[in-house]
Amino acid sequence: MAPPLKDELDIVIPTIRNLDFLEMWRPFFQPYHLIIVQDGDPAKTIKVPEGFDYELYNRNDINKILGPRASCISFKDSACRCFGYMVSKKKYIYTIDDDCFVAKDPTGKDIDALAQHIKNLLCPSTPLFFNTLYDPYAPGADFVRGYPFSLREGVPTAVSHGLWLNIPDYDAPTQLVKPRERNERYVNAVMTIPKGTLFPMCGMNLAFDRDLIGPAMYFGLMGDGQPIGRYDDMWAGWCVKVICDHLGLGVKTGLPYIWHSKASNPFVNLKKEYKGIFWQEDIIPFFQAVVLPKDCDTVQKCYIALSQQVKEKLGKVDPYFTKLADAMVTWIEAWDSLNSSGGTAVANGKPKK
Amino acid sequence: MAPPLKDELDIVIPTIRNLDFLEMWRPFFQPYHLIIVQDGDPAKTIKVPEGFDYELYNRNDINKILGPRASCISFKDSACRCFGYMVSKKKYIYTIDDDCFVAKDPTGKDIDALAQHIKNLLCPSTPLFFNTLYDPYAPGADFVRGYPFSLREGVPTAVSHGLWLNIPDYDAPTQLVKPRERNERYVNAVMTIPKGTLFPMCGMNLAFDRDLIGPAMYFGLMGDGQPIGRYDDMWAGWCVKVICDHLGLGVKTGLPYIWHSKASNPFVNLKKEYKGIFWQEDIIPFFQAVVLPKDCDTVQKCYIALSQQVKEKLGKVDPYFTKLADAMVTWIEAWDSLNSSGGTAVANGKPKK
Repeated sequence: MAPPLKDELDIVIPTIRNLDFLEMWRPFFQPYHLIIVQDGDPAKTIKVPEGFDYELYNRNDINKILGPRASCISFKDSACRCFGYMVSKKKYIYTIDDDCFVAKDPTGKDIDALAQHIKNLLCPSTPLFFNTLYDPYAPGADFVRGYPFSLREGVPTAVSHGLWLNIPDYDAPTQLVKPRERNERYVNAVMTIPKGTLFPMCGMNLAFDRDLIGPAMYFGLMGDGQPIGRYDDMWAGWCVKVICDHLGLGVKTGLPYIWHSKASNPFVNLKKEYKGIFWQEDIIPFFQAVVLPKDCDTVQKCYIALSQQVKEKLGKVDPYFTKLADAMVTWIEAWDSLNSSGGTAVANGKPKK
Repeated sequence: MAPPLKDELDIVIPTIRNLDFLEMWRPFFQPYHLIIVQDGDPAKTIKVPEGFDYELYNRNDINKILGPRASCISFKDSACRCFGYMVSKKKYIYTIDDDCFVAKDPTGKDIDALAQHIKNLLCPSTPLFFNTLYDPYAPGADFVRGYPFSLREGVPTAVSHGLWLNIPDYDAPTQLVKPRERNERYVNAVMTIPKGTLFPMCGMNLAFDRDLIGPAMYFGLMGDGQPIGRYDDMWAGWCVKVICDHLGLGVKTGLPYIWHSKASNPFVNLKKEYKGIFWQEDIIPFFQAVVLPKDCDTVQKCYIALSQQVKEKLGKVDPYFTKLADAMVTWIEAWDSLNSSGGTAVANGKPKK
């Protein structure tokens, strides 16, 4: 049987090393096309195991393709992965870190993470009312008593956020305080994050519908020359969530799990994160209060409107946010230069008539 | 070892029959005091297994204790259970249906539902931001990267909503369409329902902090002489949630599971529910839009303010809601007549100075 969405999904992998980790994923990933975004020294050769269909971009390629607009793509930080989202021509993206391996479910069976993400993306989300039995579309489940019938159709799913067994995605202070903590709790659920609620989106094991939300999946300015790191996926997640809420799209979290093999160095992480740790105390109230203008009916329009608010409100917190707001605009220009310009207008997740 | 909260928790059970189901719960419930609310014919004698410490109220008792205010307590409907909340003098309430038995966890061990509810109530909730690893206070879990540190203290938990294995809590139409569906999915998680999100609260397996939210746990006018049934717990849940959101209190759902043994008759249920099924299409937008005045700093004040909005806005949907709004006021009068009047002012879950 052909894998679902074979011709409609790209796997995006940011890396600085040989991709030996793909061996373990071979049964699941080999049918798909890979977009590898090589970070760091472009002179280095990245080895990809035989039999995989891929394209690889290093910094020289990014500079050549985007010209001056390449400034919006981070360097020496896995935030560079978003370049892969931009050059893909597929409807769906799955992105995974190269220290993530196949996890096992409680019965000991290998988890096909990609298959679960595809399930999550292909069935609707329910952001307007909470279902206590979790995903109402899952086999053996449904909407419970008291769930309004008018909301049972759900909304299109834009994002599927998967989780991690073994090394949890903790910030540096928590890593330092709990160096031995491992995530051993397998929670057999997928749920929609309700409208109006923000969450910490991790880029380690993440899938999304590029047509629905792609232009908002910008991982910001991190790493080389920037005052901050490890907030790339968080930034994207907050932007994505307020835009999904505005456009009537759904964001899911939960299954599938991957096995996260190695904790990054907490001391290095602390250096990358420390500004983010206090900035986020302003960033979160900002995103909680964001209202996008009603006439913003494409992801691009939403994103540009958001960048203006970032400049105006967060620019006061630190000049970095003014630079970031400009980069958000550059990102959209670059996206539109490589994709059909301007996006499709959507209302409640459906193309506008 | 003494069970936790032995002297601070009452178990409230509404029933029309002998309480043989308590035999299975004996190891878990016997240390606690039971409040049995006998529904239907007060001449009938309800047998309680030996060794349980209980008080029992039938309709005659309710009429005697509340006088004319007894009109706010439903008859011939399990909504009558809320009378038990009112006469309790304890800080915590656990309420369970008499067709619910001890469930087993995936390892085959009996689940002590009450112990899990107590854990849920004693540790904080996190309604202001979603934690992707679920309860951050559970052993082996924490707040993930990107979770604002200022929000990690959480807020006091007012409600713990438990779930059901075997017979799911479906409405009559879903029961009719899926008569054989059983809930076999054990989801090993407790989560906070985010601020601003409504949920369908089921009264089958429910615990709450009476001091924090008790006066809002009114199960409405159902059953005998009323045009509707099976919306008692839903109504309470919607009122409770908007008041918890206003006062900065938390509502959790998930573990523990009980084993729900028997589906009620879907034809009878359809008759009870059908008005609710279309009314809820107005009720949900009403509750989603409710704003309580800032000076409402006790549950009682919130509840009275809510009753006024119910009368004004939902009274137009059906005269039933005008009657219900009056009963909400009567309920508060009755509550205050049996409890220290007026409630304690709270702000963000803490008593006001």
